[in-house]
Amino acid sequence: MDTSAFVTSLATSFAIFIVLLFLYSWLSRTSSNFVIYYPLRISRGLGPPEDVKSRSPWAWLREAWQASEKEIIDLAGLDAAVYINFLDAVLQILGYSAFFCVPVLVPLAVTSDNYSTAVRAPTDPAFGGFDKLSMGNIANKSRIWAFLIAAYWLSIVTYIVLWQKYKHIINVRDQVLSANARPEQFTVLVQNLPPPTNGTRSEQVDAFFRKLHPDAYEKCLVVTKLHKSSKLWTKLDSLKRKLKHAEAVFGQSKTKDKPEGIRPQHKTGFLGLVGAKVDTIDNSKEKIKDLSVKLQAEQKRTIAEEQEASAFAIFNNRAVAAEVSQSAIATIASKWRTSQAPEPEEIVWGNLSMPYLPQLFRKFGIYFLVFLIIIFYMIPISFVSALTSLDNLEKLVPFIKSIVKIKVLNTVLQAYLPQLALIIFLALLPSLLMFLSKLEGIVSHSHLVRATAGKYFYFNVVNVFLGVTISGTVFNALKKITKQPGQIVSLLDASLPPQASFFITYIALLFFVGYGLELSRLVPLIIFHIKKRFLCKTEEEIRDAWAPGPFNYHTHVPADMLIVTIAACYAVLAPMVLPFAIMYFALGWIIVRNQALKVYIPKYDSGGRMWPHMQARILAALVISQITMLGYFSVKKFVFSFLLFPLPIATLIFAYVCNKLFYTAFRVTPISLVSTDLKDMPSVASLVEAYTPTCLTPEDKFEDAEKFEDARSTATSRTSSGITSPA
Amino acid sequence: MDTSAFVTSLATSFAIFIVLLFLYSWLSRTSSNFVIYYPLRISRGLGPPEDVKSRSPWAWLREAWQASEKEIIDLAGLDAAVYINFLDAVLQILGYSAFFCVPVLVPLAVTSDNYSTAVRAPTDPAFGGFDKLSMGNIANKSRIWAFLIAAYWLSIVTYIVLWQKYKHIINVRDQVLSANARPEQFTVLVQNLPPPTNGTRSEQVDAFFRKLHPDAYEKCLVVTKLHKSSKLWTKLDSLKRKLKHAEAVFGQSKTKDKPEGIRPQHKTGFLGLVGAKVDTIDNSKEKIKDLSVKLQAEQKRTIAEEQEASAFAIFNNRAVAAEVSQSAIATIASKWRTSQAPEPEEIVWGNLSMPYLPQLFRKFGIYFLVFLIIIFYMIPISFVSALTSLDNLEKLVPFIKSIVKIKVLNTVLQAYLPQLALIIFLALLPSLLMFLSKLEGIVSHSHLVRATAGKYFYFNVVNVFLGVTISGTVFNALKKITKQPGQIVSLLDASLPPQASFFITYIALLFFVGYGLELSRLVPLIIFHIKKRFLCKTEEEIRDAWAPGPFNYHTHVPADMLIVTIAACYAVLAPMVLPFAIMYFALGWIIVRNQALKVYIPKYDSGGRMWPHMQARILAALVISQITMLGYFSVKKFVFSFLLFPLPIATLIFAYVCNKLFYTAFRVTPISLVSTDLKDMPSVASLVEAYTPTCLTPEDKFEDAEKFEDARSTATSRTSSGITSPA
Repeated sequence: MDTSAFVTSLATSFAIFIVLLFLYSWLSRTSSNFVIYYPLRISRGLGPPEDVKSRSPWAWLREAWQASEKEIIDLAGLDAAVYINFLDAVLQILGYSAFFCVPVLVPLAVTSDNYSTAVRAPTDPAFGGFDKLSMGNIANKSRIWAFLIAAYWLSIVTYIVLWQKYKHIINVRDQVLSANARPEQFTVLVQNLPPPTNGTRSEQVDAFFRKLHPDAYEKCLVVTKLHKSSKLWTKLDSLKRKLKHAEAVFGQSKTKDKPEGIRPQHKTGFLGLVGAKVDTIDNSKEKIKDLSVKLQAEQKRTIAEEQEASAFAIFNNRAVAAEVSQSAIATIASKWRTSQAPEPEEIVWGNLSMPYLPQLFRKFGIYFLVFLIIIFYMIPISFVSALTSLDNLEKLVPFIKSIVKIKVLNTVLQAYLPQLALIIFLALLPSLLMFLSKLEGIVSHSHLVRATAGKYFYFNVVNVFLGVTISGTVFNALKKITKQPGQIVSLLDASLPPQASFFITYIALLFFVGYGLELSRLVPLIIFHIKKRFLCKTEEEIRDAWAPGPFNYHTHVPADMLIVTIAACYAVLAPMVLPFAIMYFALGWIIVRNQALKVYIPKYDSGGRMWPHMQARILAALVISQITMLGYFSVKKFVFSFLLFPLPIATLIFAYVCNKLFYTAFRVTPISLVSTDLKDMPSVASLVEAYTPTCLTPEDKFEDAEKFEDARSTATSRTSSGITSPA
Repeated sequence: MDTSAFVTSLATSFAIFIVLLFLYSWLSRTSSNFVIYYPLRISRGLGPPEDVKSRSPWAWLREAWQASEKEIIDLAGLDAAVYINFLDAVLQILGYSAFFCVPVLVPLAVTSDNYSTAVRAPTDPAFGGFDKLSMGNIANKSRIWAFLIAAYWLSIVTYIVLWQKYKHIINVRDQVLSANARPEQFTVLVQNLPPPTNGTRSEQVDAFFRKLHPDAYEKCLVVTKLHKSSKLWTKLDSLKRKLKHAEAVFGQSKTKDKPEGIRPQHKTGFLGLVGAKVDTIDNSKEKIKDLSVKLQAEQKRTIAEEQEASAFAIFNNRAVAAEVSQSAIATIASKWRTSQAPEPEEIVWGNLSMPYLPQLFRKFGIYFLVFLIIIFYMIPISFVSALTSLDNLEKLVPFIKSIVKIKVLNTVLQAYLPQLALIIFLALLPSLLMFLSKLEGIVSHSHLVRATAGKYFYFNVVNVFLGVTISGTVFNALKKITKQPGQIVSLLDASLPPQASFFITYIALLFFVGYGLELSRLVPLIIFHIKKRFLCKTEEEIRDAWAPGPFNYHTHVPADMLIVTIAACYAVLAPMVLPFAIMYFALGWIIVRNQALKVYIPKYDSGGRMWPHMQARILAALVISQITMLGYFSVKKFVFSFLLFPLPIATLIFAYVCNKLFYTAFRVTPISLVSTDLKDMPSVASLVEAYTPTCLTPEDKFEDAEKFEDARSTATSRTSSGITSPA
């Protein structure tokens, strides 16, 4: 990439960012936009900040900066706090690394002359001035020692930061878990029950636990097949919404001129386009009456006849429930499997009763499929990349030639086209991976998110990082080899570090444009205003139009991880990556804090269980970087390269030790946390209600409950758990 | 190896075996030898079989054959039963494999002519007639399909047999565990306690468990540093033995001629060689008095002052103890680690209180050391192997030439020398590996045995199996390559299967001579008679002289595993290995049953925990064999070799599934097993006594106890646990 394309890319990204920033501070003052910029505060009953109309454009920065961890946990939950801690950890690692790499390595590189002498003429346009700041420009062997020290520095800094963060997060998690009596702490999910020898399922479960813990065991809820009731419930719910909508339309049609109003009507046929015209309000009321009766009958039938081989066992003692959830019950592990129940809001009902062995084989099948996807997704991506290089486009789509002739546009296109192709292609993937993870039989949404993030990370590493690096490096070297055979090593040597500039522009695009859009929320804003004007009639519909949902950790985290991988791999080889990566995470850190405090409404809280996953992936990125360095140092024909061998082994040992020491506390609930006495215990009735799926709740009870529910659970919990159930 | 050497080796081995067999049936009838041939029956109070003097020489065979699994478990424990089950599983696997491989593959090989045509002249002496029975002799590609099918046959047979065996062993283990109330089921070992904030260690443990399980928790025993008390106790014990010995000598010296007898005397200086002469009986009595006082004081001091950071928590409810032992207590896993207590007799006292992190790093250190040993032990072994080939010996030790001229001796030496060198070298290893495993911080002897067996297995595979195969194959091929370069593949092709004859003679040596010695117990017999005649004076000394101790699983199992590996790898390539391997395991099966029923006295019973280890190693052997086949089929230039790829993957999946399904039941005690009501519960006092180390037991109590102890625990338990403690 030549220098002007590189600078153009950065400048454009920055310009877009500035525009978005101003848009944000202007739009967030308008009161009709408050539900877009402060939905969390509104749903928690806090409302927008008091000085919202008169505040300085930078007030949000100060607020995000000053918020304490406790405030974040109280408002946004532990998961958001852990995500911020992750950004913080990466910032620290990159910051400390830059502290050594930038002032020491860059001057060493810039005063060397490998590119201008050994490899090719300085006029070769493919080597920008920027490329000279990397290790590729080093010719003198003794200078490589500094890079070796940097490799150790990077690793040790990572270990120290991650160790402290892990301890900090465990600490925070401990406090949250021990203080709050959450329903899942009293509930044990028992899966894969064998067929009962005599009596019913619930008698079977009762008999076992009552004998074991006569004082602490209360009762069990057998899981049922929800498919039919859930279908009816969804239908009923949408009918109710339709009725309310029609009533609102009717109400609005009562103007002064026409006080009787116009009763809304619709056609009963396909999509409301054909069939007889009926009065919507009357028709809906009638249908609701019908369906309510049907649903009640179906609910009774489901509870009686559709029982499956799993159950929720409810205890009145958190410590005993924790013990039971950690114990092996049956000799063959595929029977009577116990685990702590997921939070009621995040249960994947359809997966609760999968038989064990088939599930195991399904998992293997899906891992294999994901493996294939990771390997073969490369093919379309490289095809698209090749296609989108400007030269190729010109050949394929001749009219582009006229556009290309405009100098500025040419530069912009050359800078952005390949990256844009990459980003669009990647946007299709998370949903596919989420779907596959669901097929694995995972029982909670937070676990689904973690599973998806893991798959996505490996995809990113193999396809984006390795794909771009290897194709860029090796193909570049191969291209030259045909001219100068026998120079393969020195060509590899020259070709790897320049890949850094591609990644720098990629990072810049992500952070300026990505985070700009994130902060300004332009897309949700536009959608909301369109919906509000043309579609929404009832309060409920308007609320649904602005309710933002939770963070999408399964796409955010792997995207960040990709930057971590890039930064770790190039930190030593091309240290100028570091300032950009640091900017990315600094901007991310402040904007995520802002969004956590004001925007996103969490559906559930996994208690920060994402952290071990994040930590493991950072270490995976570090291992990849250590192996890359080992390879590149060898390409440099540096005889002491073997001194890098202990690094990947040290990382693996560090990961193992952390896992051994800390992971248990995330996998299960440690007894000592839940053996303290509680001031207010949840009642058994409330636990039973929490673990009854919405579509099995008696209709009257549900409507009563709905009235008193606070904004949070209305926007999220029960509805979503009911809807996701029949998957 | 030429055919005559091969046949000589087999014949000699068989001749030795026949001699040992006759020795056994003759010697085992003499009543003075009963303690050598029937020690288990004697110590259990059964005595030798009734018809012992008049029985047929084959009676032992019938008895060993007919004994039911229940009898074996009752007499020898679950561990011995599991070992026999392992031999049985291997026999089945090899038997079913032979069922296909021998009648199908051998005729295919023997009617081919690769060796006589393609590779070299049929007169080449290095290719024995036996080598022609292997896949190396196949030239026709279409015949290789039969070998491919055999590879699948071998794998599938292994999966089926192992699956059924695992289920059978779990079943047996379940019955044994749920029926017997063993002290370790009521006891939880709590390790790595943090320093108590206030109060003593036992108050700290009491406070936690009493709050958690007020009804089920009884009390705790804090582990103490035993070094000093154990030293005193050992000294006292040996003095008491000395006194009894002296009294016995004195009693025997009272003949008719000299009714007053001769009082034994000894010198007090170094090794009893220098110093003043004293009366042994008086001197010992005096010293015992002194030491008893000292020991009592030391015991008090130890209990009060030498408390360490671990404790045994005693419960009155097996199910609760099992739950607690499986639960994570503290958030950081290095604190309050719980596990089921080891059986009192097998505790490694010195390892109970190792801090967690140092122990983890120690483990890494030891794994690294073992890795180095495995890699570099090859160097002396290959040196010795080269040295012991007859040609080399002639050069080094010229006088051997005269011996070699004797035709028979030459053949015998050529057949045995390399194998003998190998066997002797290997005999030194187990103690070293056992010592290293102990340094890892393992807390029970049965676990130590498993850890040693694991290390030994990998040593065997890398050094003996791979070492011999690779050096034999590759060096052989390399030797010829200098003559016919360009033929490397067909030379590799020709050189691998002939290694089978080396291994066949190795197996034959092991099973005929090894099992012959095992059955006839010649060495223990001779040692016992020498000791009895010249050293033993008291009853106790005589009992110690014959008491055989338990099976040495840590050497037996890896030796068997090596045969399994060899058999699995050559089963398809050179099927004639199979009959010999089957003979080995058939003989082993019957002789081990005999020894389990009559000879070895188990010290403790781990409840068959060796089985998952054995199963995993059989599968490891299978993976090695599958990879070997993959390689060899490719060397054969068979284009469908890729069809073998799924096999190692299938084995790994099978291992994973077995592990997931069955291993938990071995790692921990499943709750459902111990939630049944017991008829007779052990008293808390008896549990406390069991978990008090011998050297801390009050002396009078110990002597009282000794009188009533049954033969089994006298010969084994308390003494050994006391002696091993200060390690």
